[in-house]
Amino acid sequence: MLKVDFNNMTSDIIGDEHGINIAIQSVKDKDWINSAFNFVKSKEGKDWQEWMSMPHMDTKYIDEIVEYGKTIKDTCTDLVVFGIGGSALGVQSVATALTHLRYNSISHATRKAPRLYVEDNVDPNRMSSLLDVIDIENAHFIVTTKSGNTSETLAQFLYVYDLLVKKLGKDKAKKSITVITSFGKGDIFGVAKAQGFKMYEVPKGAGGRFSVLSVVGLVAFACIGLDIKQLLKGAGDFQNKCFVNDIYKNPALMTAYLQVLNMQRGKNIGVMMPYADGLKYFADFYAQLWAESLGKAVDLDGNTVHVGQTPVKSLGATDQHSMVQLFNEGPFDKVITFITVQDFCNKIKIPKVDGIDIGDFLSGHTFAELLSAERVATEYAVTKTQKPNYNIILDKLNPYTIGELLAYLMMQTAFAGALLNIDTYNQPGVEQGKVSTFAMLDRNGYEADKQEILSISKKKELII
Amino acid sequence: MLKVDFNNMTSDIIGDEHGINIAIQSVKDKDWINSAFNFVKSKEGKDWQEWMSMPHMDTKYIDEIVEYGKTIKDTCTDLVVFGIGGSALGVQSVATALTHLRYNSISHATRKAPRLYVEDNVDPNRMSSLLDVIDIENAHFIVTTKSGNTSETLAQFLYVYDLLVKKLGKDKAKKSITVITSFGKGDIFGVAKAQGFKMYEVPKGAGGRFSVLSVVGLVAFACIGLDIKQLLKGAGDFQNKCFVNDIYKNPALMTAYLQVLNMQRGKNIGVMMPYADGLKYFADFYAQLWAESLGKAVDLDGNTVHVGQTPVKSLGATDQHSMVQLFNEGPFDKVITFITVQDFCNKIKIPKVDGIDIGDFLSGHTFAELLSAERVATEYAVTKTQKPNYNIILDKLNPYTIGELLAYLMMQTAFAGALLNIDTYNQPGVEQGKVSTFAMLDRNGYEADKQEILSISKKKELII
Repeated sequence: MLKVDFNNMTSDIIGDEHGINIAIQSVKDKDWINSAFNFVKSKEGKDWQEWMSMPHMDTKYIDEIVEYGKTIKDTCTDLVVFGIGGSALGVQSVATALTHLRYNSISHATRKAPRLYVEDNVDPNRMSSLLDVIDIENAHFIVTTKSGNTSETLAQFLYVYDLLVKKLGKDKAKKSITVITSFGKGDIFGVAKAQGFKMYEVPKGAGGRFSVLSVVGLVAFACIGLDIKQLLKGAGDFQNKCFVNDIYKNPALMTAYLQVLNMQRGKNIGVMMPYADGLKYFADFYAQLWAESLGKAVDLDGNTVHVGQTPVKSLGATDQHSMVQLFNEGPFDKVITFITVQDFCNKIKIPKVDGIDIGDFLSGHTFAELLSAERVATEYAVTKTQKPNYNIILDKLNPYTIGELLAYLMMQTAFAGALLNIDTYNQPGVEQGKVSTFAMLDRNGYEADKQEILSISKKKELII
Repeated sequence: MLKVDFNNMTSDIIGDEHGINIAIQSVKDKDWINSAFNFVKSKEGKDWQEWMSMPHMDTKYIDEIVEYGKTIKDTCTDLVVFGIGGSALGVQSVATALTHLRYNSISHATRKAPRLYVEDNVDPNRMSSLLDVIDIENAHFIVTTKSGNTSETLAQFLYVYDLLVKKLGKDKAKKSITVITSFGKGDIFGVAKAQGFKMYEVPKGAGGRFSVLSVVGLVAFACIGLDIKQLLKGAGDFQNKCFVNDIYKNPALMTAYLQVLNMQRGKNIGVMMPYADGLKYFADFYAQLWAESLGKAVDLDGNTVHVGQTPVKSLGATDQHSMVQLFNEGPFDKVITFITVQDFCNKIKIPKVDGIDIGDFLSGHTFAELLSAERVATEYAVTKTQKPNYNIILDKLNPYTIGELLAYLMMQTAFAGALLNIDTYNQPGVEQGKVSTFAMLDRNGYEADKQEILSISKKKELII
């Protein structure tokens, strides 16, 4: 069960200058919230909000994924996901939350599933090192690209498929690949069809950062044996809460509203600080979701706005010894989101050791109590220094609560985009980079772009 | 060899509104820079700047560390570092840069050294999972806490030492522990003396975030066989460059100045974006260094200032599909630092695969070329959208260049703190958290603090 505690966003607790009066009085604000809600609600499950229909997917479709995943789970030593951005972050964050924290290092007998590698970069040493640790002949590769044209993912695919064909022959090699992409278009679609790879279709209205509950996440989860039905149930149940048109009962709408108000007050930084190593990658998931969705130059009316809050990934208690000095004493420019796990289902204790008289206040406490005390302490410190903060509380870490967390973060983003009156679902600012990459790789047709890039004349004396 | 290209910080390239005229004309600015330089220079190697003397350490002292490290390297299966913040981040970032990218997963025969675990959190599942993967009887544990009183590190130590004594007996157990701490004070110092642990002294003037080139980093590096002499040589040579009183020849002073000017212009976010998986944790290292050093409420004259730029960790090319949309289209509130590796010493290529006609512009290029094209593309995109950015260029990844990088980042921080007229080396904002943690753990003497924390009265209806 997921709950959100937003007491520390209010002027009652952090004062009028940095807090918000939670009793929304103005008609203007009420209308603003109401129309943002209705904007999102009116497109529930439609167009770019098709992702909202994922939790309600046809059971037969799910059953097929579970079954396909099981064959890979039972026969493969390694599962490699090639993908970047939304094709990687959802898989990485959910898998880390729901598996052993050193999943790849424990024995196969304990794991009862393949090791998992989510490969989201093209660093040559990373690519090489992957081949040093997997058993390529018994590995399975999921190639995920919604557009079908992502350079990084295509490069990874070409490198590994070439090796597979050489090692196993074409007939066996093709069984080592699953392609997850849009059907009917994109380079990888044609290849997959021609080569006879197993394929899954990414729904049209599930953009990368909103696609984790589609096949983009589910196939990988099934391959390592996660309970995807519970994941979807958690997401579906929580999504329903987010479609209640009462901001006081709708945690996603309420925190979206509070975040946007804070952005308008100049708080341009949003810290995401889970207190659980298993949730570490949720900070990365959130970072993409929040940054790509809300970082926009123009609004829906065509006005130049340059909005967007910059997400900062953090981890408690670790970053208390890294970032919290700045949170407490630095500028009043941030909102802090904690994520808390109430019960780690792990009772290991800090022992009393004979003849050692330090840490007597520590001995006897569980590690979970220590971590919890640290979070309360940090929450208190940032609250006392008047930094707006709220706390996402999960009772336990399990597929159901992780589903809730995904739904909460995605629904909050949808509402925030609507409140900001921007297109939550596009990413025009990424296009320039793709064009420039093509140009720098001398792709045909991009000669002029390369000329333009090289025309920026740098002074040698400013390289020291 | 490390160089810094700051062309894209200048008004010549990104325009007057967001760029800086690099020809420093005003006497006021010249004086400001000069006195910041002299402030740092006057304390070279002294007080809290004792860390600057680390690269010039006595050879005999280094030799002893190398020798001690070698015995652990040759006899242990696992090396575990217990530490948090500055006791962890330097070790993690340097070790990741200079070892195989999946170091712990390759065979011992290839690695020829123990696996490495840098344990910087007290999540109970993380603690449990460590015991699932190490061979505790053949592991060595480095316990690093400068103060000697860090709760997280003491808890980890107690947990493991208790197990070791039970498994191996006290005589053998004590040989599995090395303590790195301040001498003469702190809880762990007394324990280490009484139990007979091997100990190394953290120099007084090497605060956590500036301690990586002291025993805090060196002992661990020696245990996994890194060339610490080259690391120190790189740092020492680069530090010398940073003590040239000519801003046009001093990359640390120049970029500190440019960063501080940008902070004063409202650019309160500093993105650190290495384009190399090996340098991923340098973003974390930088985040602590920059945040804890510059995030301060008061300046040296006692004025309330609330300064500090918030560091944002990023990774290229991965985060092009996550954060770059925001960098390009969002607010003009950030400075972006790239780190580039010119030669990965890895020539793996994207192949042409028979019968597959996608990615023809990719095939034939090396992965290194692809990564480089992506970085140039991103640099071009953020430059075109007028985001100040600069590029730290390493010719290769090796102990010498990593030493240079450490020296550059630390010296830049020292100069930035001096320019801001703040105390770069304290962290008063962390103290409140420690007190509150003690209180929440019911430590004697902190009863009033606990009462105060619990006195914040939260409304139940604001938890939904």
